[in-house]
Amino acid sequence: MGRTTSRRRVLRVHDGGRTTRPDTLTVEEPLEIRVGGKPLTITMRTPGDDFDLAAGFLVGEGVVHAAADIRSIRYCAGATADGGNTYNVLDVALADGVAPPDASVERNFYTTSSCGLCGKASLDAVRTTVTWPVDADRFATDPATLATMPDELRAAQRVFDRTGGLHAAGLFDADGKLRCLREDVGRHNAVDKVVGWATRGGGLPLSGTALMVSGRASFELVQKAAMAGIPLLAAVSAPSSLAVDLAAELGLTLVGFLRGTSMNVYTRPDRLGFEPS
Amino acid sequence: MGRTTSRRRVLRVHDGGRTTRPDTLTVEEPLEIRVGGKPLTITMRTPGDDFDLAAGFLVGEGVVHAAADIRSIRYCAGATADGGNTYNVLDVALADGVAPPDASVERNFYTTSSCGLCGKASLDAVRTTVTWPVDADRFATDPATLATMPDELRAAQRVFDRTGGLHAAGLFDADGKLRCLREDVGRHNAVDKVVGWATRGGGLPLSGTALMVSGRASFELVQKAAMAGIPLLAAVSAPSSLAVDLAAELGLTLVGFLRGTSMNVYTRPDRLGFEPS
Repeated sequence: MGRTTSRRRVLRVHDGGRTTRPDTLTVEEPLEIRVGGKPLTITMRTPGDDFDLAAGFLVGEGVVHAAADIRSIRYCAGATADGGNTYNVLDVALADGVAPPDASVERNFYTTSSCGLCGKASLDAVRTTVTWPVDADRFATDPATLATMPDELRAAQRVFDRTGGLHAAGLFDADGKLRCLREDVGRHNAVDKVVGWATRGGGLPLSGTALMVSGRASFELVQKAAMAGIPLLAAVSAPSSLAVDLAAELGLTLVGFLRGTSMNVYTRPDRLGFEPS
Repeated sequence: MGRTTSRRRVLRVHDGGRTTRPDTLTVEEPLEIRVGGKPLTITMRTPGDDFDLAAGFLVGEGVVHAAADIRSIRYCAGATADGGNTYNVLDVALADGVAPPDASVERNFYTTSSCGLCGKASLDAVRTTVTWPVDADRFATDPATLATMPDELRAAQRVFDRTGGLHAAGLFDADGKLRCLREDVGRHNAVDKVVGWATRGGGLPLSGTALMVSGRASFELVQKAAMAGIPLLAAVSAPSSLAVDLAAELGLTLVGFLRGTSMNVYTRPDRLGFEPS
């Protein structure tokens, strides 16, 4: 749709001098995801691969487990007063028998309203909703292969080169081959787009794959990887405490600070050829 | 509360060698914000300054405009089955006459369900809810002063030094003096904590100040700055298209790629001593 980047005039100040010139920016626009006509969430995203984004988001929420769970996805025409289509509102029709998501605030964390809210409750909530046991995944690679991923991810990032403003997520085989790369202003969106791409192509669960992200590893990224059946998550930067705890709980391999030939392996180092922790 | 960082064992791989050692991680835990006992949102945050986070969030939502709009904030005891306090659920009691927030999905973007959802609708929604016209703010500084802010921000980042895993937001005077710094796993949370700190101290609107963030400048960060009456937002990395559009619409000065003595000024360069764009 050609809306990935946009040009604006900018005043560039450099070493005391200044020039006015056009600058290429990453496009950010809201996307409303509806399920069965009912609003579920609004995310600020970079337009493109929106159907993948919606499908991947629903995999992360535990609603969709296979391509057949989705009957159709379409942009909502007539969303504006003049009947136009902004391509920023889409509706997902689930297949018969697929339970729609709970749209309440507590959906990600609560099973009952009295269970409290702490890191442990979050871990429990994810553990009880994962469909595929990544713990048992026999995916195996080695540190040298993993070390090639950041360069490959960066080389494939076309929009970042022009704007410097995007997060990336890449899905790799055990031999380091890049299967799918997506970029977005939102880090969660980039992962949702990768997972949704695989889902709609019939690729779930994503056993035997590694997910690499350009930034940090948060609780939610570990959750999204696990919900798609991905046994290894690698990040360029630091993980949070709860990301490590969730990876340990689920048996997912979590790697952080993957830079050059260096990396920190927080959980399940056996998949990289090291003795189990 | 001493829960800002946490230790985990990690396998460090470096140049073919490997060592097992303790690693310091940024703590990430969920925080549920309730208003008048009703759940409003859950955010993954680094514990600490939670009352500020809640107050700042409500300023960004257009609910709170002054310290007096909040009657009390307290952690909810008894949130767990055993009656304990996780310090991860808090309740904000608004003062009499303060309208509670709309907890629906559409609250940030819609005024009516038929208005459509596009970048323009988002800009309009913010423009109609801002309380203080940052456009008229006569804040003035110069590029040399602005150039000192990233180093000062980084020098004051205590947790980042230990974990490498945090976003920072700093509030500065026009002469470059740091008034308040907050760090969090979530970039929005760091800004909310700064704004909430000022709010609870009676400092709204934050006219005559600059907000500096460690990452990128998104639509939502420009929105949060404007809702607090901050006339200048500076980011180490790139802004998005919608961030620039909103800053232009509101008359807020937006600076990106602030590194060393270089920077890009996207809107309202007059506040830095340049002719108006």
